[in-house]
Amino acid sequence: MESEANQDITHKSAAFSPSNGSQEQTIFSTFEPLVILEFKPKSKQAAQEWLTAKLQAPRTERGAELIVKTNTSENSKETILYIGATTERLLIGAEEMKIQKTYRDGSLRDISLTDLDNFNNSEDLDRFLTTAEKQRVILKGMESLRASEEETFIPGYPKNSLYPGKSIIKKYLSRNIVSNLFPLHEEEKLKRLGDEWYTMKNYFKTQPIEKIQEYFGVKIALYFSFLGIYSISLVPPAVIGVIYFFSPSSMYREATFAVFNLIWSTVFLEGWKRYCNSLCFKWGTVDSSVSFSHSFEEPRADYYGTMGRNLVTGNPEPVYPKWKRVLKFYLVTLPIISFCLTVAFFTMLAYFWAEAWMKKNAPQNLGIITTMNNLLPTIGYAVVIGILNNIYRTIAVKLNKYENHRLQSSYDNHLIVKLILFEFVNCFICLFYVAFYLRDRALLKTFLGTLLVTQQIVGQFQEAMVPFFFMQRRQKQVDKALRKAEGSAAVTKEVTESDQDVDKMYKKQAALEGMMDKWPGSNDEYLEMYIQFGYVYLFSSAFPLAALWAMLNNFIEVRSDSFKMCRVFQRPFVEKANSIGAWQPAFEVIGLISVITNCALIGMDPEVQKLLPSDMSAVNMVLIFVAAEHIVLAIKASIALLIPDVPKWVILQIAKQEYAAKQALRKQMSEDSCNSKFMMKRMVEAALKKKVVLDAFSRRSTVFRNDSQSAVKEPL
Amino acid sequence: MESEANQDITHKSAAFSPSNGSQEQTIFSTFEPLVILEFKPKSKQAAQEWLTAKLQAPRTERGAELIVKTNTSENSKETILYIGATTERLLIGAEEMKIQKTYRDGSLRDISLTDLDNFNNSEDLDRFLTTAEKQRVILKGMESLRASEEETFIPGYPKNSLYPGKSIIKKYLSRNIVSNLFPLHEEEKLKRLGDEWYTMKNYFKTQPIEKIQEYFGVKIALYFSFLGIYSISLVPPAVIGVIYFFSPSSMYREATFAVFNLIWSTVFLEGWKRYCNSLCFKWGTVDSSVSFSHSFEEPRADYYGTMGRNLVTGNPEPVYPKWKRVLKFYLVTLPIISFCLTVAFFTMLAYFWAEAWMKKNAPQNLGIITTMNNLLPTIGYAVVIGILNNIYRTIAVKLNKYENHRLQSSYDNHLIVKLILFEFVNCFICLFYVAFYLRDRALLKTFLGTLLVTQQIVGQFQEAMVPFFFMQRRQKQVDKALRKAEGSAAVTKEVTESDQDVDKMYKKQAALEGMMDKWPGSNDEYLEMYIQFGYVYLFSSAFPLAALWAMLNNFIEVRSDSFKMCRVFQRPFVEKANSIGAWQPAFEVIGLISVITNCALIGMDPEVQKLLPSDMSAVNMVLIFVAAEHIVLAIKASIALLIPDVPKWVILQIAKQEYAAKQALRKQMSEDSCNSKFMMKRMVEAALKKKVVLDAFSRRSTVFRNDSQSAVKEPL
Repeated sequence: MESEANQDITHKSAAFSPSNGSQEQTIFSTFEPLVILEFKPKSKQAAQEWLTAKLQAPRTERGAELIVKTNTSENSKETILYIGATTERLLIGAEEMKIQKTYRDGSLRDISLTDLDNFNNSEDLDRFLTTAEKQRVILKGMESLRASEEETFIPGYPKNSLYPGKSIIKKYLSRNIVSNLFPLHEEEKLKRLGDEWYTMKNYFKTQPIEKIQEYFGVKIALYFSFLGIYSISLVPPAVIGVIYFFSPSSMYREATFAVFNLIWSTVFLEGWKRYCNSLCFKWGTVDSSVSFSHSFEEPRADYYGTMGRNLVTGNPEPVYPKWKRVLKFYLVTLPIISFCLTVAFFTMLAYFWAEAWMKKNAPQNLGIITTMNNLLPTIGYAVVIGILNNIYRTIAVKLNKYENHRLQSSYDNHLIVKLILFEFVNCFICLFYVAFYLRDRALLKTFLGTLLVTQQIVGQFQEAMVPFFFMQRRQKQVDKALRKAEGSAAVTKEVTESDQDVDKMYKKQAALEGMMDKWPGSNDEYLEMYIQFGYVYLFSSAFPLAALWAMLNNFIEVRSDSFKMCRVFQRPFVEKANSIGAWQPAFEVIGLISVITNCALIGMDPEVQKLLPSDMSAVNMVLIFVAAEHIVLAIKASIALLIPDVPKWVILQIAKQEYAAKQALRKQMSEDSCNSKFMMKRMVEAALKKKVVLDAFSRRSTVFRNDSQSAVKEPL
Repeated sequence: MESEANQDITHKSAAFSPSNGSQEQTIFSTFEPLVILEFKPKSKQAAQEWLTAKLQAPRTERGAELIVKTNTSENSKETILYIGATTERLLIGAEEMKIQKTYRDGSLRDISLTDLDNFNNSEDLDRFLTTAEKQRVILKGMESLRASEEETFIPGYPKNSLYPGKSIIKKYLSRNIVSNLFPLHEEEKLKRLGDEWYTMKNYFKTQPIEKIQEYFGVKIALYFSFLGIYSISLVPPAVIGVIYFFSPSSMYREATFAVFNLIWSTVFLEGWKRYCNSLCFKWGTVDSSVSFSHSFEEPRADYYGTMGRNLVTGNPEPVYPKWKRVLKFYLVTLPIISFCLTVAFFTMLAYFWAEAWMKKNAPQNLGIITTMNNLLPTIGYAVVIGILNNIYRTIAVKLNKYENHRLQSSYDNHLIVKLILFEFVNCFICLFYVAFYLRDRALLKTFLGTLLVTQQIVGQFQEAMVPFFFMQRRQKQVDKALRKAEGSAAVTKEVTESDQDVDKMYKKQAALEGMMDKWPGSNDEYLEMYIQFGYVYLFSSAFPLAALWAMLNNFIEVRSDSFKMCRVFQRPFVEKANSIGAWQPAFEVIGLISVITNCALIGMDPEVQKLLPSDMSAVNMVLIFVAAEHIVLAIKASIALLIPDVPKWVILQIAKQEYAAKQALRKQMSEDSCNSKFMMKRMVEAALKKKVVLDAFSRRSTVFRNDSQSAVKEPL
């Protein structure tokens, strides 16, 4: 064990700061694997070798030009590829991916290889890119391996046909020939990040967003930032909700509470949009030309089509006609989704019907049996909805893939809308049904409270307990794996010669992290927040303590999510983002609907009706609430318009960049065009003008000569 | 007269195509005045000379570097400047103003002097810019004459103080030292344009928008384009309105008509936005970086402040702190405007009160006297509102100037909002009052019909008859001026030597056009359309024939406006625009409000109420109309979202330009940075690496040597 610890230190120091003691270590183990690829045990040798060769082949020969070390353990029949790349390859890749870094003038600019000198921190090119960026470059390199005309199937798997332009690695993953593909964690850095992030002593500090971004990328950093800001934004409604709860019923109380909540949701969402834009600007994901640059973004790896050329850049890329996607959407997606939503809706109706039937027909006064009987429909509904949800999700993902969106952001947004639609029917329509069809205020309160609290308890259990269990399990796995790694290390050393330069530490780390779960993406987390947001704002006047519950839940959520992120899941590849995507409008729609629901709820509340002047007609009462609704909507719209989406300083910076780009384009154009050519043209023009003048003069002089001739002749 | 006509032809051919006959003429009268500046008669000689010198001075000496010919007619004491510029000066100015021209690849690009070669039609540089563009360049040159630190007043006018950064020409204009500043018309071109535009034979053809843009600039072309499209968009509502008028009352009729109108207004406005964007793209006013380029647009000439630097470009420009503008807005503008609107509102109330009082108290049955008495309040109201309107407009313009907006577009938009607010109270609030407070459907119909028809008849009279009268008057002026010009020509020839090279024709043209009215801008025309749009859509279910009236009116309006544009007014300087500015949202707001008003109108209609099931409660009825309103609003919002604001082909083109700019910036960066420096750095790095390796080797060899030494020692 002593030697293990020692080696650990050596490895870390090699990775972070070469000290005297490990000088030799640094030099002779320069290969640093960044990404691990595990082939499925017993997958065909030919397929493994083909991919490995592709990964290593130079890019001129349609390869990825990566450094690959293979490790096949004799006993488990498992082949693992340790993938790294030279600094040059990584920098070239970073340039191609337009990764942005701080320029000497403080602005962020796309990396330019020939201009690296002017970027900050470019003294040590090996550390110019963060590990996360390097891993992304490698992934991009792997993803851009696309089948050529001749490569019609995966060697060893003649049935797994490829077509030109299909991403090879995606095929390996979808056919499960590659069982695992993940970037390695940086233990040291992760530990420091975790210390700041989820440990108890920092519980009331803000999250280290900058460091999260550096380690996990913009997309995940935005999720945590949104979760944090959303949780904090719940404090005022929670406080006001408590005050509401303990204050006597009055028209004034109802109006203040409802109006505050309704307007607050807009302030929060607009404030977030603004904050998000400044974060993204700092992180270089707000393009200076936000508007139309998507036309020359590269398509996602799963995007398929016939190989053609990008209409803007002229670079080769798969082309898929838009009308096909539109047709697929209207003829396939729309009917199927509508059918699923209808099923969910009728399931809900069936539930209400079953419950009513049970209450009416089942024998009452039987104690525990009655309770059981009465619970039966609810349990049945929960089970059916759970099953339906799973089926629906599978269908939604399949349909979304089938639609073949060109950009990852477009793919994500379409998936988000599909997920939201189902949850809407599932979680909210039944509340609408209770509130506005059954008009049962008491049932609505019970329902809301039950849904919110149970979902949160279940959620917390899943998110705080399960990670703890995972932690325990992994600890055991660590020990087991360590022993196994020590054992197998001896074996492999004899078997494969090529991998002797992969550090033993990396092998262990790869083995350990290979056993961890894949991060399932942030959509489920957002969805959870979304439903909670709906519970809090849609019916806030019926259940004013919702904000308090949600706030308490979220303060735990932030930490349990961050713990999972660091300790439970494999490191995810970083992803770019410049907003939370379709979630932003989705939250805004809830904010909008909540105005309608709350005005209706308050208007329907008999308590409130009693507070109004008794001589008021029912029609006038309705009109007052409609007017109130319109006024609140107008206020919300004005707030949304008045809070600029992009902070002034970001606008200034972007404008500066735009201006620089324009000036550069101008300079470029003038340099491109041959100056001497222009000069020549001007000279020719001048000459032509002169000629005209001379011609005119000569004509004049001709006239003069004629005159003089005639003058001469005259005397004769 | 014969020689006059002859000279006319000579002049025209000189301007358009040099023919054989006028070869000499072309060469010896190359000076073409483009802009005319008239000093006020009896203005101080010193002020005239100072400005003239400034206009002529080279730009290095803070001048405008223009060619100026002076003409002082002895009898009228009037000094006229004929202003032109060399082709070089015009091209330099065009480059600075970022005028866009077609590049050889078909795209529009900012003119670049060193790259002129690659622009289409750059063979003849004298005609590379249109006359309108040249005139704009000259105006810009004049406007950019700004007072320096030392120039504290206008010579000859010690009381007219200047401060550093103030536009000198604007001061001359505002102090009325310069009485007239206008670009000359191009008779030939104008005649051809008019033939296509307003003559009877082309009455049912579309307007020659491209030619209008070339002659009058983008802003005016957009106005006429909008007027045209709006008029055409009125055809479906007009047709449906007529059908409605002649069909029997039914729920179906009401619903169809209202829903069609409400949704149609959105389709029209979204369609226009899209069309406008493609027009602006074609005309080069959609910047590829639409979003933030306003930060480096140049401020308007009236903008004042201490001389500082633009935060983006670093160019010197007046700087005015934003908080001052905000303070002015909230502390001065807002209270004054609110006061004005309140006055207008109470005037309206007073009118209704007076009318009711008159009906009640004035002796009836007195025939003509009764009618007169009953008309008194209406006449009084019309007079008072007319006066108030004039006062308000003066105040609005003054306040808007006082707010000191940096950009012309921002100035325009703030003025538009101010104008709209007053008209809203003036024209619409009284209709709201009748419709929803008095709930007098019959009165509403009468009111709407009267307002619409009288306003249109008065408007048509003003716009079609007055121009005709002008035409007549001008014909006389032409004759008078011609005689005068002939008379004075002889006088001036002796008096001033410098102006003998200003063509006689230009002098006449300048004298004639100087007498024409200044074009008052398009705001009043938009306002007229806006009020009409409100009459048509806000209460369409009360007065369904409004669209027909409006349509008929507008088809005349297009032609009378175009006639005025060409024949009645001085040529305006062209102005850039990339939309119809604040009018777009203003029209959209009407579209939005019309949903509310129409749903309410239909809901309140006793005819409609009779058509509903009789057992329906009043509350449910209200709820149905509220629900209908929400559904229509949702449909409108979806349509607005689904119709992309920018057509696909424009997006592609802009993306291409953005991509080119990015690539150029990248190339630029790499060229700017010293390549050899980078190479050197890499070499040094390589050397350093080698050194580390060598060091390690040397240490190894030391070890080895030690070993060998010990090995050597051992045997000993």
